[in-house]
Amino acid sequence: MTKYRVGILGATGMVGQRFVQLLENHPQFEITALAASDRSAGKTYLEATPWKLATAIPEAVKDIVVQAIEPPLDCDLIFSSLPSPVARETEEAFARAGFPVISNSSSFRMDEDVPLLIPEINHEHLGLIDYQRRKRGFDKGFIVTNPNCAVVSFAPPLAALERRFGVESVIVTTMQAISGAGYPGVASLDINDNVFPYISGEEPKVETEAQKILGRFQNNSIQKSDFTVSAQCFRVNVTDGHTAAVRVNLKQTATLEEIKQAMTDFPRLNLHSSPNPFIYVCDEPDRPQPRLDRDRGGGMSITVGRLYPDSVFDCRFVCLSHNTIRGAAGAAILNAELLIEKRLIERK
Amino acid sequence: MTKYRVGILGATGMVGQRFVQLLENHPQFEITALAASDRSAGKTYLEATPWKLATAIPEAVKDIVVQAIEPPLDCDLIFSSLPSPVARETEEAFARAGFPVISNSSSFRMDEDVPLLIPEINHEHLGLIDYQRRKRGFDKGFIVTNPNCAVVSFAPPLAALERRFGVESVIVTTMQAISGAGYPGVASLDINDNVFPYISGEEPKVETEAQKILGRFQNNSIQKSDFTVSAQCFRVNVTDGHTAAVRVNLKQTATLEEIKQAMTDFPRLNLHSSPNPFIYVCDEPDRPQPRLDRDRGGGMSITVGRLYPDSVFDCRFVCLSHNTIRGAAGAAILNAELLIEKRLIERK
Amino acid sequence: MTKYRVGILGATGMVGQRFVQLLENHPQFEITALAASDRSAGKTYLEATPWKLATAIPEAVKDIVVQAIEPPLDCDLIFSSLPSPVARETEEAFARAGFPVISNSSSFRMDEDVPLLIPEINHEHLGLIDYQRRKRGFDKGFIVTNPNCAVVSFAPPLAALERRFGVESVIVTTMQAISGAGYPGVASLDINDNVFPYISGEEPKVETEAQKILGRFQNNSIQKSDFTVSAQCFRVNVTDGHTAAVRVNLKQTATLEEIKQAMTDFPRLNLHSSPNPFIYVCDEPDRPQPRLDRDRGGGMSITVGRLYPDSVFDCRFVCLSHNTIRGAAGAAILNAELLIEKRLIERK
Amino acid sequence: MTKYRVGILGATGMVGQRFVQLLENHPQFEITALAASDRSAGKTYLEATPWKLATAIPEAVKDIVVQAIEPPLDCDLIFSSLPSPVARETEEAFARAGFPVISNSSSFRMDEDVPLLIPEINHEHLGLIDYQRRKRGFDKGFIVTNPNCAVVSFAPPLAALERRFGVESVIVTTMQAISGAGYPGVASLDINDNVFPYISGEEPKVETEAQKILGRFQNNSIQKSDFTVSAQCFRVNVTDGHTAAVRVNLKQTATLEEIKQAMTDFPRLNLHSSPNPFIYVCDEPDRPQPRLDRDRGGGMSITVGRLYPDSVFDCRFVCLSHNTIRGAAGAAILNAELLIEKRLIERK
Repeated sequence: MTKYRVGILGATGMVGQRFVQLLENHPQFEITALAASDRSAGKTYLEATPWKLATAIPEAVKDIVVQAIEPPLDCDLIFSSLPSPVARETEEAFARAGFPVISNSSSFRMDEDVPLLIPEINHEHLGLIDYQRRKRGFDKGFIVTNPNCAVVSFAPPLAALERRFGVESVIVTTMQAISGAGYPGVASLDINDNVFPYISGEEPKVETEAQKILGRFQNNSIQKSDFTVSAQCFRVNVTDGHTAAVRVNLKQTATLEEIKQAMTDFPRLNLHSSPNPFIYVCDEPDRPQPRLDRDRGGGMSITVGRLYPDSVFDCRFVCLSHNTIRGAAGAAILNAELLIEKRLIERK
Repeated sequence: MTKYRVGILGATGMVGQRFVQLLENHPQFEITALAASDRSAGKTYLEATPWKLATAIPEAVKDIVVQAIEPPLDCDLIFSSLPSPVARETEEAFARAGFPVISNSSSFRMDEDVPLLIPEINHEHLGLIDYQRRKRGFDKGFIVTNPNCAVVSFAPPLAALERRFGVESVIVTTMQAISGAGYPGVASLDINDNVFPYISGEEPKVETEAQKILGRFQNNSIQKSDFTVSAQCFRVNVTDGHTAAVRVNLKQTATLEEIKQAMTDFPRLNLHSSPNPFIYVCDEPDRPQPRLDRDRGGGMSITVGRLYPDSVFDCRFVCLSHNTIRGAAGAAILNAELLIEKRLIERK
Repeated sequence: MTKYRVGILGATGMVGQRFVQLLENHPQFEITALAASDRSAGKTYLEATPWKLATAIPEAVKDIVVQAIEPPLDCDLIFSSLPSPVARETEEAFARAGFPVISNSSSFRMDEDVPLLIPEINHEHLGLIDYQRRKRGFDKGFIVTNPNCAVVSFAPPLAALERRFGVESVIVTTMQAISGAGYPGVASLDINDNVFPYISGEEPKVETEAQKILGRFQNNSIQKSDFTVSAQCFRVNVTDGHTAAVRVNLKQTATLEEIKQAMTDFPRLNLHSSPNPFIYVCDEPDRPQPRLDRDRGGGMSITVGRLYPDSVFDCRFVCLSHNTIRGAAGAAILNAELLIEKRLIERK
Repeated sequence: MTKYRVGILGATGMVGQRFVQLLENHPQFEITALAASDRSAGKTYLEATPWKLATAIPEAVKDIVVQAIEPPLDCDLIFSSLPSPVARETEEAFARAGFPVISNSSSFRMDEDVPLLIPEINHEHLGLIDYQRRKRGFDKGFIVTNPNCAVVSFAPPLAALERRFGVESVIVTTMQAISGAGYPGVASLDINDNVFPYISGEEPKVETEAQKILGRFQNNSIQKSDFTVSAQCFRVNVTDGHTAAVRVNLKQTATLEEIKQAMTDFPRLNLHSSPNPFIYVCDEPDRPQPRLDRDRGGGMSITVGRLYPDSVFDCRFVCLSHNTIRGAAGAAILNAELLIEKRLIERK
């Protein structure tokens, strides 16, 4: 089977590097085009990239010449990790030019015609693509998105609770890794021996995306879930792995055991990058921990722990996911695997 | 004026070291006795102490020979930072032997006859001392306590809200410094590039102490405040300074401006170690930060920031205090200053 | 082919955990016995072990009951990562009882009849085993050792230089990872926002082991190399990966290019855990870095960089190796693979 | 006595902030002008400055409007912490306009007519100022400089050895704090859980400045000391405080006790910011440590420890200084205090 040919927008950044790393040896994809800002265009990927991952730059991409970020690129689909300000115009241009755009940017996430996907939770939201094409006049192209990296850490256990018991309100306090800000990103003077209490634009995203992700697709639109979310977001001195402290009020009463069961039973998918289990629930009192749990399932599992009754809410727990894998590049790749299974990507 | 003569129990530990540091050049106190575990007894303080503070060991204590932890000691009052398991029996023995015991341990905090003090908030709780003496058959001695170091970070802004508007429920998520666990305390392998989601015994303390602190003294007892607290407690890679993310529901409605005003207006005391202001409210979106704000007011101020309306609760904010100063040794010293002002400590 | 059956002494410690991790799915070994201190004996490995690695405890060992550290154990060979004080007596007892003991302890490293192995460098030192058995009256058992974890980072490039040009003197300044001290090991208060300038017993080891490792085996003894080493050893806030800053004076003059070539050309072995290349020389000015380079070659490669002429010595460079893999458990496993190839281990 | 009126170039950067912090309440200086890049000019200092120090911005400077970096400024002397590329032209312009320029930049340090000062070591180098004025055609203005922040940590103990025994060669391996790179400076992804082996331009400075600092002033020029220095420079995850591991060969033999005595006896000056002692030699085996020793003498002392015989050189030791105080702003302020004592600064 020949592989699908992939182009990456923002290929030299932290998420771009994760795309390149995760696609090495991927059975369904091969990288054929890398695009980045003007500063990088014209250089080889090796020259252009301040590689910050603990595995070597794959040989196959070292000599690929980085191109400017504009359609067309020589590929069947586009992974985009552009900064939000440029993403909106550029991604739409690629979709209009006929490319499936699997975006990690926040630009289109909340647009009513754009799927905001976690495949295990809401693959039926792909139904929006037809509507999107009609609405925006796209022919073959389209845009799908994955959630904010902090949202990914708690949306899966929340989905488990929403389906089984209904969710009424959620309190989330995040402790987010520095890699989430890209490179150079967080200044070491701001985070060494410190907690940084502010991440620009983060709290509104965390308060709104989960309701769409857990919403129902019907009549060509997403009926958002009606729970409310309160978010306080912090940066901590951790390389990778976002931790979230969560309290939840449910619509129906549930025992702790039922809650744990709902999470553990949440079905995985048979896609290449879908981890098994999707949600792993720890019993040890001192887990999850970013250093020890972020790489579970190749960085694609959600780890939940410290599930207890709460004195104000119905229950509380701590959850963790790898912010640049399940929270970014890995999420987009899983979306692409889903799109292939659903025959929504064609070879050019 | 001659100074009060101080004995310190647990003098070689992290909080013991803070006592020694903060009492150097204190106008009201001089250290005359240092006591620690059998391992240290008989050595000079210099020999016995793995000094971990950034100022030099005071000359005046270097050669003091550390004694065993048992009454009597040659002093007018006792500061105790014993580990909880041994604190209960030992502190009571000192009180019974006629010593005012100003304890930083958790052992007696929730006993109905023991004041749990933050002088700016509840100095009238000292009224319990008479009852305590009668109940326990103490003659001149007594025990007063200061709160858990994480509670200290949010109890002051909470007190401001409770007095002005009434507090109904509180959600607290803490990010606590490593010095809170003493020395050697937290293993570096547990906290480097990591967040540690578990602090033994901490969440129950954080969920119960504030109600007593903010309670009313009447009829020889404390009528606890009736709000509920939910606590999730984390250890982060910070030397000093506990950060707390807080949401609050109030009994009366209040604007953000009124809430801020209530905190800013909260009166300070005229005691030597009482900072000015007691509660400092930042307007910058990226404050408080442990590295930058923990030393405000000599480590005795509470810094509040990111005060906003909340989507689930009435408001939210972030607060921070220095865990081994306002949260431990400094708190006990302030308690002693209050006791002196109230003429509850006599020179022997 | 049936696998060799392995017993691990000190199985619950940091290096013991690395043994367990690295032996999972190893083609030549299976773990059949785990031994640890009295505190752990009688518990399952899962219960007894404060697992601190980022991969899950292998299913195959979870339920193995930890035994006391005394012969015999049900296995063909012993990996030992005992603390030095207990290692000397215990390891000799196992060897006397007929077990090949592949030790990571420092106890026997400098004994004249015990091989101190880096297989790529000095596998001929195995010739000592006959002499050792005669001298100590061992029958089938014997002891081989691997070097101190800091020595491993610079001994390979030094070997390359010694063979080609002769080495006269070496200056080594190490920046060592916290995992090298085991668990709980380094207190976080000693290393957070800090450099710790003292590692007990380390500098003498670093100044003496390389001369033996690079020595010649002749007439049943090791003729040590005659260069001198100066070592200053520091602990830094890094989880894994020891960095060494090195200056070298050579006996013959050599160009930088020849020096680099000598390192790059240093032959690897065809053993399962021997990395390819053995010594990797970077050209980037900002490498090696622990976070990015420690896992090269599965943690078994030595990474060298910043190779330049020096103003006082002939040349200088920076080298790095993974301290608990190439510097401990992986080193011992490679030694065992060598012993198997040399038919020095029998199935019982 | 009226204070000297100070202007600061680069006032909003990390070193600029230290100037502002250290000059608060200084008995001889008051800040009357603050200059910074075009981005900041026109804003108040409070608005323009990303303040990163743990004490509050002094009230007295908050409302000063930041000016463009060009002469004249309303002040008697100039402290400059400009980045090197712009420093050369700008500082010369200020000197030409009649201002004493006390510079922390590297631009002029090695110019033969510019003093490179550590007042306790080489205040007689001020004799160069006359020559400088003649050579450059300055009237009342002039330029003096302080050393690179890493050089400052080892030049003082070296000066003690040079004077008493003569120094032949020096090996320095530095572990430098992140604040040395300014703000935003070092990216957290480059230093968290890491050691960064490269600091642009640093090793050449460390290899050449000490010879000038320790040189003799005669016949209107500095006769540089003739020892050689080898430098390897690393960035480590420490907020403030540069550590240097040093080996030294002496021209005359000396016992360790004589070496220690030479350092301890090195005379201090009676200037306001000159610490007592200038060089503090620790006996504890685990000192100096950045977190514990950087603030000694208000950040102006040099702390030396681990003084031992070396196996290749005559002796070795570890030294530490506060990089943004003694290594930058504090150094320049001490230079200004010296200039006042020598009547080289006039009130305008």
